[in-house]
Amino acid sequence: MAHKVQEYVQLLQRQIISELEDVDGKALFQIDEWEREGGGGGITRVLDGGHVFEKAGVNTSAVHGVLPERMAKVLNVPATQFFATGISLVIHPQSPFVPTVHANFRYFALGEDLMNPLDQWFGGGADLTPYYPYLEDAKHFHGVWKEACDKHSVASYSDYKKQCDAYFYLPHRSETRGVGGIFFDYMRTDPEDTFAFLKEAGDSFTKAYLPIVQKRKDIPYGEQERLYHEIRRGRYVEFNLLFDRGTRFGIETNGRTESILMSLPARVQWHYDWQPVAGSKEAEAMWFFEPRDWLSFDV
Amino acid sequence: MAHKVQEYVQLLQRQIISELEDVDGKALFQIDEWEREGGGGGITRVLDGGHVFEKAGVNTSAVHGVLPERMAKVLNVPATQFFATGISLVIHPQSPFVPTVHANFRYFALGEDLMNPLDQWFGGGADLTPYYPYLEDAKHFHGVWKEACDKHSVASYSDYKKQCDAYFYLPHRSETRGVGGIFFDYMRTDPEDTFAFLKEAGDSFTKAYLPIVQKRKDIPYGEQERLYHEIRRGRYVEFNLLFDRGTRFGIETNGRTESILMSLPARVQWHYDWQPVAGSKEAEAMWFFEPRDWLSFDV
Repeated sequence: MAHKVQEYVQLLQRQIISELEDVDGKALFQIDEWEREGGGGGITRVLDGGHVFEKAGVNTSAVHGVLPERMAKVLNVPATQFFATGISLVIHPQSPFVPTVHANFRYFALGEDLMNPLDQWFGGGADLTPYYPYLEDAKHFHGVWKEACDKHSVASYSDYKKQCDAYFYLPHRSETRGVGGIFFDYMRTDPEDTFAFLKEAGDSFTKAYLPIVQKRKDIPYGEQERLYHEIRRGRYVEFNLLFDRGTRFGIETNGRTESILMSLPARVQWHYDWQPVAGSKEAEAMWFFEPRDWLSFDV
Repeated sequence: MAHKVQEYVQLLQRQIISELEDVDGKALFQIDEWEREGGGGGITRVLDGGHVFEKAGVNTSAVHGVLPERMAKVLNVPATQFFATGISLVIHPQSPFVPTVHANFRYFALGEDLMNPLDQWFGGGADLTPYYPYLEDAKHFHGVWKEACDKHSVASYSDYKKQCDAYFYLPHRSETRGVGGIFFDYMRTDPEDTFAFLKEAGDSFTKAYLPIVQKRKDIPYGEQERLYHEIRRGRYVEFNLLFDRGTRFGIETNGRTESILMSLPARVQWHYDWQPVAGSKEAEAMWFFEPRDWLSFDV
């Protein structure tokens, strides 16, 4: 299973990158292969300054060795051998009309013998962060994930949607990070069935995201929209550095800093007590930043 | 003592703002007075878009009430009445040649009777974050703090300098935040003597910082220096959101978000694996981002 998942996420990485490069039409993803001191390594692929995408990272890793002490403590397991592989991506487009997206799909196993692990589980998810949100985009994104979940008895869209809303939440702003998506972890259902779902989800990513990009990428915008975009991106940075477990865990366990922080947008602004003007497009956007049942809307 | 410190930090706030407005020549600090639900409040004063200062916040607060549970846990004391007052400032100049500076000076007391507290202590410090550093600026800044400490038997420059280096450190970058300064906390020495030192330190702030501003503010710079400036500011955001105890504590205890995050610079950039060109000014700057005995250099 370890080997099959690793192969799958690397294949998915190449497919997603190829589709993103096609849509962008200008920028290519650079490649950085790195090795982990304790065992394994990763392939970091980053794009900076494209036509459509301002900054994007699509990374895979497959690491193994003795479970770091801190990780053992968090997982509440003895410091045995471990194996972890996954794909993690964050895409920040140039246009404030094209949402930021994040997704990851991963597999974790404990024990000396990967053919017969002591424990193993799958996790992952995808969530969408629009700046000028469209109800039909939120509905499309969620619709794709619901369809993927509904095909697999091990998965539950409604559970994963709730988990996503709860996780991607900024308590100090009383806002969700965006319009959510799905989030799941510690899936210990039958490994073959669960892997089949993980592949379904991975393969659904571009179907969930790229139609939105195509629909919104040519909407004209000016300085005011861009300022708002960079200010809202500040919330993304706040979430990732203050609350995201993966980011904090990576930083605290001496992970590869540049691969972890590739999730941060290229250009960000913070201004004291910025508030949208009442009745403006920017004020209307705030309606989207709380948990809603997007599929129930008739658009 | 509670009342005296509160009066002092508010006076210091007005003095510092007046000197900063003089140096800037354009922007004025706006004023936001706020009240805390559990008791007390603060005066947030922020400048955005000045000639010399791009963003600056000089805040005071004086809060009291029942010690929040989380705070009691961190301090390892019972949930009694508390009083806290202090001044906290962060200044982000426009020019990459003018350093960012941070300082705060504060007093904390526990117990029902502020005239006779169960426990009380002082804390504070100041640290300098240059982008294009000058050895003579680091030496001047530290020289002022050493002089202030040397006048008071309760204080120790060498201790506080070490604490500052240890605190303002980014482990994931293996860098200090800047060239340091002084940092002290839980000073439980004689309250009158300690308050005399706190005033000395507070009064020293503009002497430590403004001569550096005056010396560097008119150095011309272009796009390349500005890009570097915004990228280095990313480290400031990373420190404050990932590691700064005050920021995390404020966010986690439902503090006033905008007053806490006024410390973040206005414009910031993150690019994957940015590295200074070997031999460049930017590469040379890195020498400054590790603990050094600035006063020992002959400049």
